[in-house]
Amino acid sequence: MIVVNARSSAGPAERFRATRIDRRDPGPADVLIDIAYSGICHTDVSRTRGEFGTTMYPIVPGHEIAGIIVATGPEVTRFAVGDRVGVGCLVDSCRQCDYCRAGLEPYCRRDHIRTYNSIGRDGQKTLGGYSEKIVVDEAYVVRIPDAIPLANAAPLLCAGITLYSPLRHWQAGPGKKVAILGFGGLGHVGVSISAALGAHTTVFELTMDKQADALKRGAEDYRLSTDPAIFTEFAGAFDLIVSTVPAPIDYDAFLGLLALDGTMVMLGVPKKPITLDVFSLLYNRRSLAGTLVGGIAETQAMLDFCAERGIHADVEIISADEIDDAYDRVAAGDVRYRFVIDVRTMANG
Amino acid sequence: MIVVNARSSAGPAERFRATRIDRRDPGPADVLIDIAYSGICHTDVSRTRGEFGTTMYPIVPGHEIAGIIVATGPEVTRFAVGDRVGVGCLVDSCRQCDYCRAGLEPYCRRDHIRTYNSIGRDGQKTLGGYSEKIVVDEAYVVRIPDAIPLANAAPLLCAGITLYSPLRHWQAGPGKKVAILGFGGLGHVGVSISAALGAHTTVFELTMDKQADALKRGAEDYRLSTDPAIFTEFAGAFDLIVSTVPAPIDYDAFLGLLALDGTMVMLGVPKKPITLDVFSLLYNRRSLAGTLVGGIAETQAMLDFCAERGIHADVEIISADEIDDAYDRVAAGDVRYRFVIDVRTMANG
Repeated sequence: MIVVNARSSAGPAERFRATRIDRRDPGPADVLIDIAYSGICHTDVSRTRGEFGTTMYPIVPGHEIAGIIVATGPEVTRFAVGDRVGVGCLVDSCRQCDYCRAGLEPYCRRDHIRTYNSIGRDGQKTLGGYSEKIVVDEAYVVRIPDAIPLANAAPLLCAGITLYSPLRHWQAGPGKKVAILGFGGLGHVGVSISAALGAHTTVFELTMDKQADALKRGAEDYRLSTDPAIFTEFAGAFDLIVSTVPAPIDYDAFLGLLALDGTMVMLGVPKKPITLDVFSLLYNRRSLAGTLVGGIAETQAMLDFCAERGIHADVEIISADEIDDAYDRVAAGDVRYRFVIDVRTMANG
Repeated sequence: MIVVNARSSAGPAERFRATRIDRRDPGPADVLIDIAYSGICHTDVSRTRGEFGTTMYPIVPGHEIAGIIVATGPEVTRFAVGDRVGVGCLVDSCRQCDYCRAGLEPYCRRDHIRTYNSIGRDGQKTLGGYSEKIVVDEAYVVRIPDAIPLANAAPLLCAGITLYSPLRHWQAGPGKKVAILGFGGLGHVGVSISAALGAHTTVFELTMDKQADALKRGAEDYRLSTDPAIFTEFAGAFDLIVSTVPAPIDYDAFLGLLALDGTMVMLGVPKKPITLDVFSLLYNRRSLAGTLVGGIAETQAMLDFCAERGIHADVEIISADEIDDAYDRVAAGDVRYRFVIDVRTMANG
């Protein structure tokens, strides 16, 4: 057993505390990763605060993990000690079903095992990346290209693949018009990926103060999502709208911006059920869709793509003692654009 | 000007009355159609009763028109006097936009002209098929193959194409599992088309008494939509769910029946906005979509397909004086499976 420093929360209204957790000794196909940075995803905040109603406390969140391999099991073939690697939202799945075999592990018919707040194959609750080390089967580990600093790579493991997967699936590319709703942790990476794929990319955001960043990342247009004029100007304009917004929005109004056979994909999950008029879907044969993160192979493809195109997440590095403040700022939308925890600071907890 | 007998309603709570309406003299590209049968669509009932809030009274409904050409304009090239023809939901569109040129006239960027309750190119309100004759540009007329009796063909012009178009668009066919929600005017034709396309087809209905008809039309399975056990048995089972149900249903429950990348298509439009949990879309990367009827070329393809496969609508033929009673029965779901008006009975009004 390997004992490591971590940060955990004991309840929906509790502050994070320093703790020590056990990691299993690496099995034959496992790698032991020395975590360098762990991103803070909006889902971490919701999950830690019990908003989905399925949180098992105490919780050690973190599914945007970047680090270095420090040990490998005897059957590991793809990685070696010293490799720069990442772990995202899942650490296992059944590996047998048609979805797993197709590389769509997040959709595993027997349900995948999440990096934290899930029950692992050993019957133990999984504990995530807010910790010094993690042991993961190599099949669920990806390689971080040298071109991407580990801190900037961490958010790609969730935010990056969450955008890359639908943009590829719904064929963002040359000749396509894409709108990204929300220019935050997900959206800022999404704009870069959409533009790099060749799609004409427009951002809708609540404030104008991120416009320069969006244009720098390749957006052709940036508009206030609260301006009623956009619903006339952009009516029927987009082939794909990717909503990263977890707050409720006027779905009928945004669906009205879709062209024939256009799709609005939901990534951000509002806390309450959403309401819409079916007529918004009938006109232009529109679809409202959802997506989880991409599979392991697609996550690797995303990292390679980002490395090749110079796409990084913009991060604000914090110490392990600043997680609570960071959570408040994530909930308030006050971050440019992703917090990552410098895990070396955990030793001082 | 051609004066013909018709049936019209003067308000949301009015009964149908015999009336006489004007039809334009056929223009160069027009055909004059002697209407034999006019189907009664659920939309006719909703529209006549003012449920969409956009009804222009007096209204002459009817967009499932089957008849014989009795005159043609000098520039008509595709049809001749004596031809068996049909007219569906639209009688014109801009013909210039990319959607019209792609044969998707219902999605015309300048909006199509509906067969009734629309404003035609002449600035006059369009009047539909509950009348003895209609004048339509040949570009919006389709040929009814000899194999389909006119009475059984009429409902195909709306109900048939409304099912055929999404079944083709979302690729119902061999190896695909399709569920049809509702076995009524739309559903009974949809089951035949889905099965004829080679898809494994399941029906969900409120009562079991239509099971024999559904199996005869090619359904492999027929279940009560009110049986909670279906949501476990069929979880993640279908590639495509086509909802013909205009009443509110549990969208989350039915979305849960979709396999990876499955789509639930809405044809029936509930009167009120619908509510759903976004998580229902995230799992299995599902889509909720809408569709209008297909275009003119696709309507012709549908009729040819139905003729080749022996697919007819099951109809109950009524006289023009029975429209009000038929409306009550349509609203109550008491029809097998489509009323068609024998238009010859209008002369007695």
